[in-house]
Amino acid sequence: MNYVANALLAAGARPMMTDAGDDAVQAVRAASALLVNLGTLSSDAAAAIPPTVAAALDLGLPWVLDPVGIGRLRARTSLASHLAAAPPSAIRCNGSEALVLAGEGRGGRGPDSDTAAGDAAPAAEGLARRHGCVVAVSGPADVVTDGRRSWQIASGSPLLQRVTGTGCALGALVAACCAVADPFAAAVTAHAWMGSAAELAATEASGPGDFAWRLLNALDAVAPEKVALTATIR
Amino acid sequence: MNYVANALLAAGARPMMTDAGDDAVQAVRAASALLVNLGTLSSDAAAAIPPTVAAALDLGLPWVLDPVGIGRLRARTSLASHLAAAPPSAIRCNGSEALVLAGEGRGGRGPDSDTAAGDAAPAAEGLARRHGCVVAVSGPADVVTDGRRSWQIASGSPLLQRVTGTGCALGALVAACCAVADPFAAAVTAHAWMGSAAELAATEASGPGDFAWRLLNALDAVAPEKVALTATIR
Amino acid sequence: MNYVANALLAAGARPMMTDAGDDAVQAVRAASALLVNLGTLSSDAAAAIPPTVAAALDLGLPWVLDPVGIGRLRARTSLASHLAAAPPSAIRCNGSEALVLAGEGRGGRGPDSDTAAGDAAPAAEGLARRHGCVVAVSGPADVVTDGRRSWQIASGSPLLQRVTGTGCALGALVAACCAVADPFAAAVTAHAWMGSAAELAATEASGPGDFAWRLLNALDAVAPEKVALTATIR
Repeated sequence: MNYVANALLAAGARPMMTDAGDDAVQAVRAASALLVNLGTLSSDAAAAIPPTVAAALDLGLPWVLDPVGIGRLRARTSLASHLAAAPPSAIRCNGSEALVLAGEGRGGRGPDSDTAAGDAAPAAEGLARRHGCVVAVSGPADVVTDGRRSWQIASGSPLLQRVTGTGCALGALVAACCAVADPFAAAVTAHAWMGSAAELAATEASGPGDFAWRLLNALDAVAPEKVALTATIR
Repeated sequence: MNYVANALLAAGARPMMTDAGDDAVQAVRAASALLVNLGTLSSDAAAAIPPTVAAALDLGLPWVLDPVGIGRLRARTSLASHLAAAPPSAIRCNGSEALVLAGEGRGGRGPDSDTAAGDAAPAAEGLARRHGCVVAVSGPADVVTDGRRSWQIASGSPLLQRVTGTGCALGALVAACCAVADPFAAAVTAHAWMGSAAELAATEASGPGDFAWRLLNALDAVAPEKVALTATIR
Repeated sequence: MNYVANALLAAGARPMMTDAGDDAVQAVRAASALLVNLGTLSSDAAAAIPPTVAAALDLGLPWVLDPVGIGRLRARTSLASHLAAAPPSAIRCNGSEALVLAGEGRGGRGPDSDTAAGDAAPAAEGLARRHGCVVAVSGPADVVTDGRRSWQIASGSPLLQRVTGTGCALGALVAACCAVADPFAAAVTAHAWMGSAAELAATEASGPGDFAWRLLNALDAVAPEKVALTATIR
């Protein structure tokens, strides 16, 4: 939560986070977009998510689902399937999580993916068509699809896998971009932004320790409207 | 919690943190001061706070209330009003939160303030007189008042708003200073310490990413007994 | 949790963390080793630990107990005593915590130790013999014992005490090493690895703020098979 909040602040957004029941339903009324992240899901948070999503839908807010670690963990897998059908404006996940949501896989080992984003692209496209939402699958080459169009963003750095919370920060960035753009453009922009920032940070980093804070500096320094041009039609 | 703990360690204090019921009541017996921070309030923590405050009062410990995000969030707003009447040795808040506690506002947008500290100064002075406690309101120019005296501390950096947890770290620093000084001197010193450290960190930082850790270095490097002299009578 | 995850990633391990009930039991099936850390123990986590340990034992997984802050806090002290008898493959603790587990002390002040590792060595050796497990006690000179052999690792830096989570990261590193070595070799290696990394980070750090991320870089840079040779027979 701390790194995600700092990434949003670096990107110019205003985070407000909670894992407590009533708070979330009330906080969403002041929000421009909602992110539901299933990582380290407490029982408080699990109970708070469905009414919070209902409140966001009532308000017409865009919202993004990040189904962290589904597959092995039954409670969050079943919650994620339920939420995907709401549907969200966008789903942000890795290859293994996309396969689980599409009913084609059993999940990765913990929060990591055992499936490349490209290999999960057909499943992601089917998922996007079924739910009528954008699906973004992260990996060395990210795929963003709405079921009709599929774009690929090939920027990034292997150091992203060496710092916890970078995937969650990307999901939060998709949600922040959804506040000011349609979900497809938002997801492409967020992935290109994070990828370009990671490349910039990696050129200066000595290891994973300074890559983490250099990535925050780079999210602040990189102009999102420029990097979105680096995405290509898949 | 992580950044606050590191700020306290950098400042030379010894943090002990919990959000679990019985732990807090027992831990307070080993403490020199208590901080009650209402941010990301779990149901565990909400239930644990009143008996923990009662234990601190029994022990004659100074304690500080940081009513993060009150206004929109009903549960913590009502808890904060109840706690303010205990009363604490000091309340550390932003302008919007001061207005809510004084019954004059509906709160900011999430953890941020929509009200300058100076604009909230009359409300803070009334609040300090009503409860007989120190009230410190953070902003570009901080205000610290006990209802009779009001001091202003104008140091700081806009980068403080770009790193999550810096406001919470300031509340914790007020509590740590309350362990060794009266609450008014403690609050003035803590705000001057954080403000001077932020100015030092900002001169070296390339962005919000390295500002965060440079601020910890600066809390370690700055001598609090010197910076308190930078406060002025408002 | 964030710093511990980043330390494991820097060391080349793959962390998966949760404090939610059923998640932990299911997640352990994908794991190579289990760490049970009692710091900031929520009621969710406290309930989840015994069945998670039972699941790890069923699977024949190595597991490590880090009894953070026991002594003053009754719930976690009683849980730690119960867990120590399971027994774990290794217990990672500080001097005060070792004395509490051995029935000889009342605990330190919060997460800090009031007892040097060397002074707690006889208690640690008795504890290791009683439970048939490895006991590692951290301090300026760490002690690792299985009740027959006691090794000492004298590397490290005082800056380790100025950054929260470094002790927890060491416990996690012991668990990660237990996935690929016997518990005694794992504990010696993890302590030598962390100690050497801390020395390397301290030579470059300006203060506690950059020591934290330089330590992650150093965990990545230091080769564990070399540093284990720095341990000596006590």
